[in-house]
Amino acid sequence: MKIEEKFEKMGVDHAPGQEVRRRDADLPLRGEALPGAPVDFSHGDVDAHPPIPGALQTFIHGFYEGGKQAYTEYRGRESIRVNLAKKLSGLTGCSIDAGEEMILTPGTQGALFLAVGATVARGDKVAYVEPDYFANRKMVEFFEGEKLPVFMNWRKREQGSGLDLEALEKTFQDGARLFLFSNPNNPTGAVCSREEMEKIASLSRTYGVTVIADELYARQMYDGAEFVHFSGLADKPDHLLTIIGPSKTESMSGFRLGVAFGTPALIRRMEKLQAIMTLRCSGYNQAAFADWLSEPEGWLDARVAVHRAIRDGLLEIFRRAGMEAATPRGGSYLFVRLPKLAVEPEQFISLLRIQARVIVTPGTEFGPQFTDWFRINFSQDHDKAMDAAARIVLLKDRYRKEKERDVSESE
Amino acid sequence: MKIEEKFEKMGVDHAPGQEVRRRDADLPLRGEALPGAPVDFSHGDVDAHPPIPGALQTFIHGFYEGGKQAYTEYRGRESIRVNLAKKLSGLTGCSIDAGEEMILTPGTQGALFLAVGATVARGDKVAYVEPDYFANRKMVEFFEGEKLPVFMNWRKREQGSGLDLEALEKTFQDGARLFLFSNPNNPTGAVCSREEMEKIASLSRTYGVTVIADELYARQMYDGAEFVHFSGLADKPDHLLTIIGPSKTESMSGFRLGVAFGTPALIRRMEKLQAIMTLRCSGYNQAAFADWLSEPEGWLDARVAVHRAIRDGLLEIFRRAGMEAATPRGGSYLFVRLPKLAVEPEQFISLLRIQARVIVTPGTEFGPQFTDWFRINFSQDHDKAMDAAARIVLLKDRYRKEKERDVSESE
Repeated sequence: MKIEEKFEKMGVDHAPGQEVRRRDADLPLRGEALPGAPVDFSHGDVDAHPPIPGALQTFIHGFYEGGKQAYTEYRGRESIRVNLAKKLSGLTGCSIDAGEEMILTPGTQGALFLAVGATVARGDKVAYVEPDYFANRKMVEFFEGEKLPVFMNWRKREQGSGLDLEALEKTFQDGARLFLFSNPNNPTGAVCSREEMEKIASLSRTYGVTVIADELYARQMYDGAEFVHFSGLADKPDHLLTIIGPSKTESMSGFRLGVAFGTPALIRRMEKLQAIMTLRCSGYNQAAFADWLSEPEGWLDARVAVHRAIRDGLLEIFRRAGMEAATPRGGSYLFVRLPKLAVEPEQFISLLRIQARVIVTPGTEFGPQFTDWFRINFSQDHDKAMDAAARIVLLKDRYRKEKERDVSESE
Repeated sequence: MKIEEKFEKMGVDHAPGQEVRRRDADLPLRGEALPGAPVDFSHGDVDAHPPIPGALQTFIHGFYEGGKQAYTEYRGRESIRVNLAKKLSGLTGCSIDAGEEMILTPGTQGALFLAVGATVARGDKVAYVEPDYFANRKMVEFFEGEKLPVFMNWRKREQGSGLDLEALEKTFQDGARLFLFSNPNNPTGAVCSREEMEKIASLSRTYGVTVIADELYARQMYDGAEFVHFSGLADKPDHLLTIIGPSKTESMSGFRLGVAFGTPALIRRMEKLQAIMTLRCSGYNQAAFADWLSEPEGWLDARVAVHRAIRDGLLEIFRRAGMEAATPRGGSYLFVRLPKLAVEPEQFISLLRIQARVIVTPGTEFGPQFTDWFRINFSQDHDKAMDAAARIVLLKDRYRKEKERDVSESE
């Protein structure tokens, strides 16, 4: 494949955070703009939910430590890895060797890119989930792997994620070398049950498949639901990388901190790739890992509780308006369905931005078939989020197909 | 190529900064360890030469700016790009459009990786220099490009870098699509003359070759020598990316800040790749770009002067001991040749670390033929560097071949 072709296929125009660079063609405007505080649902609001206590202070301490902290080995400073391995072993229930089984990366995106780069060569078949985090698909394309999507029926699930395990096994039979997925799922908030995970692990061992489990939202579970870490299974995959970090629940995204842990041979490859990619996770920033997973007592419970309240408020608003959204069991994402409108969903999303000052992410970022869905990250100021959701509903009604709108207005 | 093969070829064992992970086999020790302060010549000492004034304060300011600074667009926050474009236009003498021609990256390594990833597909021929920065070769290998090395005869140069321009043209005739090089050169400190650059630019236009110019050390020139920026040439290459950043002269490596500027179509590809690699240069860290290229008056002159003194002191020590090293015209690197020894050069480098507490980088990182060379980064404490160089000389004498050593000792 020529380099021009390769990049032709990669898009960032609709990626979260890129809205500022968009230039919209003429849109069929109806009515005036809606008043209200702007809300950017494309990512969490770290002003509403600030980084974990002490983060800036440990960064400053790292800066004053000087060269020792600025120039760490490529996989990250040893003392920090030792501390993290202990805390992550406690979290996941598996024993992690800080020397051989862990690497610190520039954000969890960095960890994912290194993990996929370390496991996918041209033509390798990769199983991944639809819907799932948009970069998963794009990374496989960049490394010229062959994509084998597996559908997750999150809307109909009674328990677990609704991942189609028969279809997953079929991809393994067809030669998939890697299975890549997020859990809790981005964008739906579905969470795998223990049974589903044990089945995935068992299949991966049977067919010799490597598993990359993105557990970025593992700490943010609702309603007392159990989160089962892949790495903590008694019979886990033989070749497993877990990706995690403090960018989401802990609001540390501005520091770009990520961790991968798992099979030593894969961690070594990731280190080799990091050596030519960014050398290391920013030296001083690594210091801020110290505050993660050892937050003040009650901090995590409070953060989860406030997010649960936002989730429930939004679900009520959308459902009352007849918009479908499954209840997220973990994480800060809500995947919402649009009714039939008089404009294309992509146009409606632009109209939301222009007329309601609300930014959401199109469903097609998570799988080509999700044309009438959008994702919101509800880690926002509670009241502003409720107002913004109400504006989404108002605008949805304004742009419904003429006939339906007339019916609705006469009710 | 299978993924295992691909990574088999990529090594990090001898990469700078990785020494802490080395496990040496039995070495033929002679005599006792030499006393003295440890010196790590594999990278600069930011404790001896601290980051530019104000860096920590602007970082803290960025942190308190919150979400606006944490979540920037993938190519970096607009206000920061506008400020940087103005300053870099002044530095280089070319006019840079902040909107379309610039991207902020996680360190200059990040910029290089994005630039190579955006220009090299499998099988594309890439011309690069020997000796040159080790990651250049490794990145071409990772993206499965075809390597066309061009020798630079830095030892014999009267002026300019000594790059073999006829050999370079030959690679272009043979189908090279990209020419990738550092200027000032890493590891030799050679600097291209205006004539050389004009010739490279002219050849690149004739053959339609993209040029990636790594000008990381552009601000650190000695003895009043002129530095000509590729981007500032009247007839510059049609497809050009310049890589620069504050990690070296300015000691900001712990923040991982880099910039690439040049051809808009290539910057767009780099942004697409960054979107799946690390999303963005760490948000809060981007704030620290504000202090770069606008340091207090006299700061840069003083920093260059102190490095010149270290350079000259080391050159005197090595040359008095009969060890060859060309005078660097720019940057903080010195490439030094070892005489014939009773041990392999690689063993000698391990012995230096164990018996003299001195870390240097093997010449083979910069080209397979440089087996009896090593590189040092002389951005160190002046006195400790002189002591460490004296220990290198002492140990060199201790490990010379028996016959030569006897002669030497009887003198």
